[in-house]
Amino acid sequence: MQNDVTPPLAGLRVIELSSFVASPLGGMTLAQLGADVIRVDQIGGGPDIDRWPLAPSGRSLYWAGLNKGKRSLTADLRSAEGRALVARLAADAGVVLTNAPPRDGLAYEALREARPDLIHVQLLGTRDGGNAVDYTVNAAVGLPSITGPAGGAEPSNHVLPAWDVACGLYLAIGLLAAERHRLRTGEGTRLRVALSDVALATAGNLGMLAEAQLGQVRPRLGNQLFGDFGRDFATADGRVMVAVLTARHWRDLVAATGLTEVAAALERALGADFRTAGDRYAYRDALGGVLAPWFASRTCAEVEDGLKNTSVLRSRYRDLAEVAAGLHDEPLMGEIDQPGIGRHLAPASPVRLGDEVPAPAPAPELGQHTAEILRDVLDLPDTEIADLRARGVVGEPV
Amino acid sequence: MQNDVTPPLAGLRVIELSSFVASPLGGMTLAQLGADVIRVDQIGGGPDIDRWPLAPSGRSLYWAGLNKGKRSLTADLRSAEGRALVARLAADAGVVLTNAPPRDGLAYEALREARPDLIHVQLLGTRDGGNAVDYTVNAAVGLPSITGPAGGAEPSNHVLPAWDVACGLYLAIGLLAAERHRLRTGEGTRLRVALSDVALATAGNLGMLAEAQLGQVRPRLGNQLFGDFGRDFATADGRVMVAVLTARHWRDLVAATGLTEVAAALERALGADFRTAGDRYAYRDALGGVLAPWFASRTCAEVEDGLKNTSVLRSRYRDLAEVAAGLHDEPLMGEIDQPGIGRHLAPASPVRLGDEVPAPAPAPELGQHTAEILRDVLDLPDTEIADLRARGVVGEPV
Repeated sequence: MQNDVTPPLAGLRVIELSSFVASPLGGMTLAQLGADVIRVDQIGGGPDIDRWPLAPSGRSLYWAGLNKGKRSLTADLRSAEGRALVARLAADAGVVLTNAPPRDGLAYEALREARPDLIHVQLLGTRDGGNAVDYTVNAAVGLPSITGPAGGAEPSNHVLPAWDVACGLYLAIGLLAAERHRLRTGEGTRLRVALSDVALATAGNLGMLAEAQLGQVRPRLGNQLFGDFGRDFATADGRVMVAVLTARHWRDLVAATGLTEVAAALERALGADFRTAGDRYAYRDALGGVLAPWFASRTCAEVEDGLKNTSVLRSRYRDLAEVAAGLHDEPLMGEIDQPGIGRHLAPASPVRLGDEVPAPAPAPELGQHTAEILRDVLDLPDTEIADLRARGVVGEPV
Repeated sequence: MQNDVTPPLAGLRVIELSSFVASPLGGMTLAQLGADVIRVDQIGGGPDIDRWPLAPSGRSLYWAGLNKGKRSLTADLRSAEGRALVARLAADAGVVLTNAPPRDGLAYEALREARPDLIHVQLLGTRDGGNAVDYTVNAAVGLPSITGPAGGAEPSNHVLPAWDVACGLYLAIGLLAAERHRLRTGEGTRLRVALSDVALATAGNLGMLAEAQLGQVRPRLGNQLFGDFGRDFATADGRVMVAVLTARHWRDLVAATGLTEVAAALERALGADFRTAGDRYAYRDALGGVLAPWFASRTCAEVEDGLKNTSVLRSRYRDLAEVAAGLHDEPLMGEIDQPGIGRHLAPASPVRLGDEVPAPAPAPELGQHTAEILRDVLDLPDTEIADLRARGVVGEPV
């Protein structure tokens, strides 16, 4: 049966002490699959509370985007009493996800003392605990040196914080693996993921580090594929990206563009075999030159029409305004009413269970669930909660 | 206790019918945490068997990098008998991970018939089953329009297949969530993740889609941060990336560069407050101009020395050759002897469990475990395995 009713992570509670992208994304990913993720922040918000982009109201769209579906509790983490409350939450949940520097009473060893089967998932910058963020890890791992316009002399950063995203997902994977282990054996796990290790592992997994160890220097290719035929083409009204990864893709591309015979003649003249990726790559400039006029003389819509019903992989380049304008047609997107920001379309989890089309949940307001969590999770009486609030040990909803 | 001995995914078997990056990465991530991942390929290899980069021997470094720690079985998937064997493996394992087009007898419905609690994890290009790859999804989601040199007119692709990587990790997360659900309820799950949904969800999670829906157009900023102060600087012998995300980072940066008073004077003259991200971003050109000479007059090593013991986030840009040259010092990397490629350093999982430093396992040779799997998993007698081989229903190790 499909799990249309009970989400797969029902019953899993995670205490998240985190900020910025990776760790919040890890927690949100779990929340979107049904976990009860409680993000704990310093009263007034963590260092990411005002991170850009901002809504006209001044609220952070970034914070709202990365904390959807969680509950929010604020406490004064600078006070021993505030930290003790958070430690009790961690002992109750048995799962902590964090990228925060360890504070007195909230470090792994202390938390595990109170909960021997604790699952403690910690994001580090570098493996030895040094500071690192997506921007610095990216510079260090070498990818910017082959990103950007062909022939460019300077490194080109990605705008997508790809290492943060990957790292956040690794945190979620590690946490789920550790919880499986605990379900089966009763044992807890201390688990750490360094952002710099994620970048290094990924470059290695893709063969780039082996390539470099073997002395092969990959050129900077602009928008061209490495190792096969693919590139962007100017059309009459924009640009399209075209990628060929198999002999069939290539056969379809030259057939659809009416260039089968031209390509065959070129193949014979060059002694090449364009059924192979290596020859498509080696002769990419000639092949691109042969194909370019077909694209240049057509609009993007005409290109799409001409390649319809072929295996050729292609897409028009869109800017973010065009993407935003088309979101109403995307089943992934659902309308949320985000406090302080208003109604807009936000993504649900890309992990699609059964035939369900889940609606995205908004992010909490900072501190929204403080009293509810103290009451329901820690069984504190209302009078005590009122006292904690009055003394500034825990926060109020903003 | 730490799980130094039993890996967290021990006992989980996954039948993987996949190729290229996302789906193989999902499987490898599980294999590195202890799952028995059996990659099934057509005899002779799938469409990614020769994907670049290649070793001098012609073997794919990409394939080797993305299939570490798995077992490999080859069968003639074009024959009903070959497919029936794979269907039996799927029924035994109860977990299938795939990006392959459904073949007769291997589609979800048929597999679930034989194994009602099947977990079936399928990667799609687009949500409706259309073809899409990282290159095309990237063009469609709008990120290339703000990536690359500031002022550039043309979209700039990332070289890192970031959507594939994220998608592969989402596949692993979904699979683990579904297995948790099955452990607790006995129910299987059909789970699908579309590459295009992953890109859209990520752009949304980072606030970029909300920003665009609100009519805000983010400029292309080259290597500068959006919404705070960060950029690359030329040094006497290279480039460094510097990122400021908090007031403390900024205070440390101007102090370390001897520019505290200059920055304060600028702040007063402009009526700005550089403790805020918004003002650091608004005046980034002026601030960059003030800081640039400090970097330009120093080598990268001197810059590092000058910023040592500060909170300033920074890294020298390295190219892949430099990264490769430094791999011996990285605890993540271990030497493997990859058949057909030879000894080199490869990454282990970036998910670090306890104090363990796990060694990476090499990828299998194509078809290496075919007989072993038929014997141990399906209990086939050696005579039958020999017959299947002789008739080309299953492959031999290459």
